Amino acid sequence: MRVGNKSNRVITLLTDFGDFYPGVMKGVMLSLTDATIVDISHSIEPQNVMQGAFLLYHSYRFFRNFGKAVHVAVVDPGVGTSRKALVIEAGEHVFVGPDNGILYPSASREGIESVWIIDESKTSAFTRELSSTFHGRDVFAPTAAFAVEERIEEVATPYNGEIQKIDLFKVNVADSDEIEAEVIFVDRFGNLITNIKREVVEELDAKAFYISGTEFPLVASYSDVELGQPLAIIGSFGTLELSVRNGSASQLFGVSSGKIKLGWR
Amino acid sequence: MRVGNKSNRVITLLTDFGDFYPGVMKGVMLSLTDATIVDISHSIEPQNVMQGAFLLYHSYRFFRNFGKAVHVAVVDPGVGTSRKALVIEAGEHVFVGPDNGILYPSASREGIESVWIIDESKTSAFTRELSSTFHGRDVFAPTAAFAVEERIEEVATPYNGEIQKIDLFKVNVADSDEIEAEVIFVDRFGNLITNIKREVVEELDAKAFYISGTEFPLVASYSDVELGQPLAIIGSFGTLELSVRNGSASQLFGVSSGKIKLGWR
Amino acid sequence: MRVGNKSNRVITLLTDFGDFYPGVMKGVMLSLTDATIVDISHSIEPQNVMQGAFLLYHSYRFFRNFGKAVHVAVVDPGVGTSRKALVIEAGEHVFVGPDNGILYPSASREGIESVWIIDESKTSAFTRELSSTFHGRDVFAPTAAFAVEERIEEVATPYNGEIQKIDLFKVNVADSDEIEAEVIFVDRFGNLITNIKREVVEELDAKAFYISGTEFPLVASYSDVELGQPLAIIGSFGTLELSVRNGSASQLFGVSSGKIKLGWR
Repeated sequence: MRVGNKSNRVITLLTDFGDFYPGVMKGVMLSLTDATIVDISHSIEPQNVMQGAFLLYHSYRFFRNFGKAVHVAVVDPGVGTSRKALVIEAGEHVFVGPDNGILYPSASREGIESVWIIDESKTSAFTRELSSTFHGRDVFAPTAAFAVEERIEEVATPYNGEIQKIDLFKVNVADSDEIEAEVIFVDRFGNLITNIKREVVEELDAKAFYISGTEFPLVASYSDVELGQPLAIIGSFGTLELSVRNGSASQLFGVSSGKIKLGWR
Repeated sequence: MRVGNKSNRVITLLTDFGDFYPGVMKGVMLSLTDATIVDISHSIEPQNVMQGAFLLYHSYRFFRNFGKAVHVAVVDPGVGTSRKALVIEAGEHVFVGPDNGILYPSASREGIESVWIIDESKTSAFTRELSSTFHGRDVFAPTAAFAVEERIEEVATPYNGEIQKIDLFKVNVADSDEIEAEVIFVDRFGNLITNIKREVVEELDAKAFYISGTEFPLVASYSDVELGQPLAIIGSFGTLELSVRNGSASQLFGVSSGKIKLGWR
Repeated sequence: MRVGNKSNRVITLLTDFGDFYPGVMKGVMLSLTDATIVDISHSIEPQNVMQGAFLLYHSYRFFRNFGKAVHVAVVDPGVGTSRKALVIEAGEHVFVGPDNGILYPSASREGIESVWIIDESKTSAFTRELSSTFHGRDVFAPTAAFAVEERIEEVATPYNGEIQKIDLFKVNVADSDEIEAEVIFVDRFGNLITNIKREVVEELDAKAFYISGTEFPLVASYSDVELGQPLAIIGSFGTLELSVRNGSASQLFGVSSGKIKLGWR
């Protein structure tokens, strides 16, 4: 089912670029295509490929009915090295970014159909620049424009070799009262979004989680606890989140993104 | 009068979501409609419904000539409780958000014509998710898409009951030298935007305002005082602002958003 | 060469407005035109005209093939004074902003063809407001809409007088081991982007630069040094940047934007 007469071309952007650079990328893309461009995030923690991969995985699939939606994800500590620049076609989605694993969880979930290596000498013909520092502009932006116009073969060549992989949901139930996992994203409310999937929580049959001795009871809704109280919940990512109702778990418990050991019962 | 051939559908977004979540909402909306989406703010102070209502009130009306402009405002401390999710039609504007007063000042200014309650079981059919934490994605985004396509009745039902109200401009002239009001928004320049309307200032026939003994003379333009000097001005919101020319009143006087007692003469 | 069927109207926005205000400007513009609007930055340091001019200079030219691309740049310490509000036509670009030099480097690079002075009494007819504080909304936004629709003459009048100028690339090679220049922009990675052009570096035949005795060897790619090590590089702006590989030069060396004296050899 569908409402309205949708435009059928979209490019999403997810980077750690912060300010300014994404605007330049949009100039390059809009000079080549009139697709709609949507910012997912430009606030990925600098060089945090895992976080980028996680947020790509939880955003791309909400872009539906586009024929081919193109998703550019650039968190790229290896820019200027010989790391490859990829286009991956997978179902109704095309992923564009560096070969460091950032695209893998999303693409493999959809089913990888083809992989291409971007030819920087071709993309840079459109920006008239090839910096060693800003491949978002000189490599990935033009490629996204060609991808959304279904003309990838003009800037990339097919590739049958290996690509880098990342496992987003690797956790370790160390023993009967501890789980080693990752806080992958701390949102603006201070919610601690972990990579512990709903299925893991259900299998453990957990009732509560612990940080430094404080109990976070597993609830179905924020309103199941009082204002200011801690709680654990399966959040909108389908993973375990540790929160404080109308407060910041990150601030109150001094936790930011990275590895974490959680108690549980 | 009108310039060019305008697109006639627009959705504006105002939330306290910060990064990432608004991008997901756009995916949901653009999968259902090709309306233009405009970010007003995603930096409302977490859970500050009053600030959200104020900034909605001072932005929606600049979207004109659209037939129906749809405005989504989600600052929602009650997400996951039984608070209602509303659509309000009012003149050339349609407002979408939680029933906590955030929509009321804008909608009532335009003249409320009809109120609808969103049926979450219908909206979540489009996201294939119904989290208890992210109704921006699962409830309000699909509703906005249906609203802009003038098909509200497919996801919402008419409502004739009461809705929550907020009074944005409640101030108290305590006595002849003090006024109790609110700093509703501190902008990037450190200007303190209050909820004291131009009419109140004119009725008082005030010449200056005071914070902690420092005088802020009421002027018509920043350039009426020297660089670095404090001033009071009726700003672009049509309310009293306390500023420092080419400086930050917020930093210099340690004032952030919230209730304030101002001296005046 | 061109891909796809591009929309042929675009407006870019570059301001120091931060949050909220740009959304209001978009309301004004989209009420008058259906051009695509692209944010370049709203995080210019408050009142830093030089930084605004530099980032405009390094972004506008990536918007190509539009016939006329309109670029609005508002960093405006003189708002509310008698400073002029300008439109400058230059090649395939139209620049809109205050007469404080912010537009000059970009416009003069393209070749200034005509200059217009905006008539605020005409633009404010469209916003129904003329604040003394927010000309982004009341003056520049309506003008940009008229400019992109090629109807400038309805809101502005031709001007043949002088306009303010800025020299972005003024540096002083003080002696054989010191260069006085400017750090114009510190990006999200902590890279220090200077105004020292590639040509200057080449003419000096420099091998390395120094901050407080620490050597930043001039390299071609980040990967030419080890992780965590300082480096100097001609970055994506075509100017000298001082960086730390996968680290923040700004944090590690306590340098922010402004004048700087660099050692070199």
